[in-house]
Amino acid sequence: MLEPTQALAYARNNHERYLAEYKEFLSIPSVSTLSEHKPDMRRAAEWVARHMAAIGLQNVEIMPTEGHPVAYGEWLDAPGAPTVLVYGHYDVQPVDPLNEWLSPPFEPTIRGENIYARGASDMKGQDHAFLKALEALLKHAELAVNVKVLVEGEEEIGSPHLGAFLDKHKDRLKCDIALNADSNILRSDLPSLAYGLRGLAYFEIWVRGPRQDLHSGMFGGTVHNPAQVLCELIAGMHDAQGRVTLPGFYDQVRMLSDQERAEIARMPVSDEDWRRTTGVPQLYGEKGFTTLERLGARPTLEVNGLLSGFTGEGAKTVLPAKAMAKISTRLVPYQDDLAVEEQLKEYMRRHAPPTVTWEVGKIVSSPAALVKRDTPGRRAAAAALETTFGVKPVYKLEGGSVPVVSMVQTKLGVDSILMGFGLPDDNLHSPNEKQHLPTYYRGIEAFIRFFANLAGKN
Amino acid sequence: MLEPTQALAYARNNHERYLAEYKEFLSIPSVSTLSEHKPDMRRAAEWVARHMAAIGLQNVEIMPTEGHPVAYGEWLDAPGAPTVLVYGHYDVQPVDPLNEWLSPPFEPTIRGENIYARGASDMKGQDHAFLKALEALLKHAELAVNVKVLVEGEEEIGSPHLGAFLDKHKDRLKCDIALNADSNILRSDLPSLAYGLRGLAYFEIWVRGPRQDLHSGMFGGTVHNPAQVLCELIAGMHDAQGRVTLPGFYDQVRMLSDQERAEIARMPVSDEDWRRTTGVPQLYGEKGFTTLERLGARPTLEVNGLLSGFTGEGAKTVLPAKAMAKISTRLVPYQDDLAVEEQLKEYMRRHAPPTVTWEVGKIVSSPAALVKRDTPGRRAAAAALETTFGVKPVYKLEGGSVPVVSMVQTKLGVDSILMGFGLPDDNLHSPNEKQHLPTYYRGIEAFIRFFANLAGKN
Repeated sequence: MLEPTQALAYARNNHERYLAEYKEFLSIPSVSTLSEHKPDMRRAAEWVARHMAAIGLQNVEIMPTEGHPVAYGEWLDAPGAPTVLVYGHYDVQPVDPLNEWLSPPFEPTIRGENIYARGASDMKGQDHAFLKALEALLKHAELAVNVKVLVEGEEEIGSPHLGAFLDKHKDRLKCDIALNADSNILRSDLPSLAYGLRGLAYFEIWVRGPRQDLHSGMFGGTVHNPAQVLCELIAGMHDAQGRVTLPGFYDQVRMLSDQERAEIARMPVSDEDWRRTTGVPQLYGEKGFTTLERLGARPTLEVNGLLSGFTGEGAKTVLPAKAMAKISTRLVPYQDDLAVEEQLKEYMRRHAPPTVTWEVGKIVSSPAALVKRDTPGRRAAAAALETTFGVKPVYKLEGGSVPVVSMVQTKLGVDSILMGFGLPDDNLHSPNEKQHLPTYYRGIEAFIRFFANLAGKN
Repeated sequence: MLEPTQALAYARNNHERYLAEYKEFLSIPSVSTLSEHKPDMRRAAEWVARHMAAIGLQNVEIMPTEGHPVAYGEWLDAPGAPTVLVYGHYDVQPVDPLNEWLSPPFEPTIRGENIYARGASDMKGQDHAFLKALEALLKHAELAVNVKVLVEGEEEIGSPHLGAFLDKHKDRLKCDIALNADSNILRSDLPSLAYGLRGLAYFEIWVRGPRQDLHSGMFGGTVHNPAQVLCELIAGMHDAQGRVTLPGFYDQVRMLSDQERAEIARMPVSDEDWRRTTGVPQLYGEKGFTTLERLGARPTLEVNGLLSGFTGEGAKTVLPAKAMAKISTRLVPYQDDLAVEEQLKEYMRRHAPPTVTWEVGKIVSSPAALVKRDTPGRRAAAAALETTFGVKPVYKLEGGSVPVVSMVQTKLGVDSILMGFGLPDDNLHSPNEKQHLPTYYRGIEAFIRFFANLAGKN
């Protein structure tokens, strides 16, 4: 495979400007889940579209959806060559707890080798890296494939309108290869390619008891405290083996093959590494599986939030009227994300006591994804990673969820290549999210090589 | 016993003015637990002091403590007659959840027979009722006992500085009889006298896992979710009998006598009445005891608040770094409130998994109180209630906690008479707190008769 030397040199010579633009992108607080940020979402989409046009993409548009818009651009001047659909998202997670950020989440700040900001890794850094790769290739006429670049604004809320968007623009989005850059590598010196992603089913549970908050002295001992009931229900959702107890939860779960287990076992990440990354006193999880197996290949149930009664300073002796939990499950092939809601409701029907009422509402869900491991596109990606990092990439099952991967699979009939340059300690969805800058620059080079390697492959 | 007819007539003729003043008192947001309300606390103390002076009390002072001040006034012109120490508090509970109030908590609003405001029943209404009773008696020279009136500002945070205050002013506060008006009656047509109060021990528990919030996809399944652990720990704090499982929790609990159980059984409050008052689908509590027994004579453990992770609108797939619960126990004689902290810590040591760290902090505690049922003061109170309501009062054990009762017992050597005119459905500590106005007016008359009945009793 021929090195796109001019594009690589251009990219290396423009680090400073690239970084300045990346910071500009990070300064837009494009939090998709909070309605107060709607104008910022528009600004972010416009920023991406302007940027696409500036680097030489054609037919750039801000395309509406029922929710936040899609920024789209293409370059189709390689007739006969394959067409690559490149996916990114410009929306980011909320920032709370804000007081735990060492620098403001939308004032990108460099400390050491990292840049800190909400979205730095997930995924404005990845968006920017593939755009910069395309810029470098276009600048020197080294782009020999067609590209269609789609950057959406609703990934962090489960891409609720992307399915309809793909349906509506099916012809325009037709492609041979799909690149999804919403991914990460195992370590800064160890590239990886994901071949699976977990699905997600996210719920809000409410437990209600008394008509309103009561005085815990005047009523305590006579009514069932909804916060206590909620805790009892949540406590019952895992058994002593760390297995999820929702009825039928494991029925469809795909088992790992011996080969996959062997591959995972060879990954150079020890339990002690993982413990140190997370900072917990001791790791935890489903018995019978290793840490990395549990991460990508086993489904989980997590409490994402709890709220009840008085949570301010000091003492308020209230017996709360209600209690709320946000609970989500991460799903693996071939679990049905739509079935989990019924499993959770059945669990509640079986276990909620008659002393309270309850309600389960689904916020979002998406299925897990499993993609083909050996395709021309994936070989191009693997080669690009090997050349850039100097080591062969490892294949892994990703713990996170990117609903768009299964949508693209279903709607456009193409398996996505999951290649992105986040790191496990990037604090995704957490305070002090960051991107490792040397890995961001390497990512640009890997993307340049990936597009170059695709030339002539169809 | 001679009726103080002039005072009673005066009180009846001044309902309108009394109500206007009561509203003024209720408008001051004297929330003792929140530091932002410190100036309001001062305003409330000043309001009480001004009012004491206006009705004819002497030596009125705002007396400092290490925390919020005490408003104090006295009338000692009945040499040889007994001296009554009257206790009230001018502080109130926080108002949240604010959005559940039908009218703003510090804009007293009358709907039907009730006045709605934070503190209406607990206990500005009771404070105002005894002050108005004293006003009526003083106006017509019908007060034939000495009174010392102490209105503190820290009851809702556990009266942390009142013990030292009583010690310091022991001589000045010397008394023969103590009236604590921070109480309620069973029904508007059924007066009651409490002879016991539950104690309180209030804690904050923190469970911590990862160094910071994690992405639930990238880490879920490998670390123990602190919100899940907290729920598991809380779930274990009650057994299937509804008993609290803290080690040693029941060791010192005073058992009810057969006579007391028979008295409680005769109270005209059915389980269905109680269920309707609370609005729960079904009552709950420790097996082997009736609802009213559980309320006053059995200790309880309640979750007062829960907070972890993301609790805003929509979905945030966070695996929280920490989870917090506010947990309090209501204690009965002869439980040691200071021992409960160690029982809770021992529970945590036995049950918290090694996958997390934890912390238990005590916010406040006070012992339960049990007072003599047959004293001259109590007979005067019972007679005042019977004359005012037309029925004999019932004796009961109160579910709430008033730490000052045991402080007065220990420091001044006097058992308090617990007589106040709240009602069980007054929404104490809850949104839409109210006071039943006809009961407030009757309370003024009962207080007038109580003071009159005491004349000559020593």
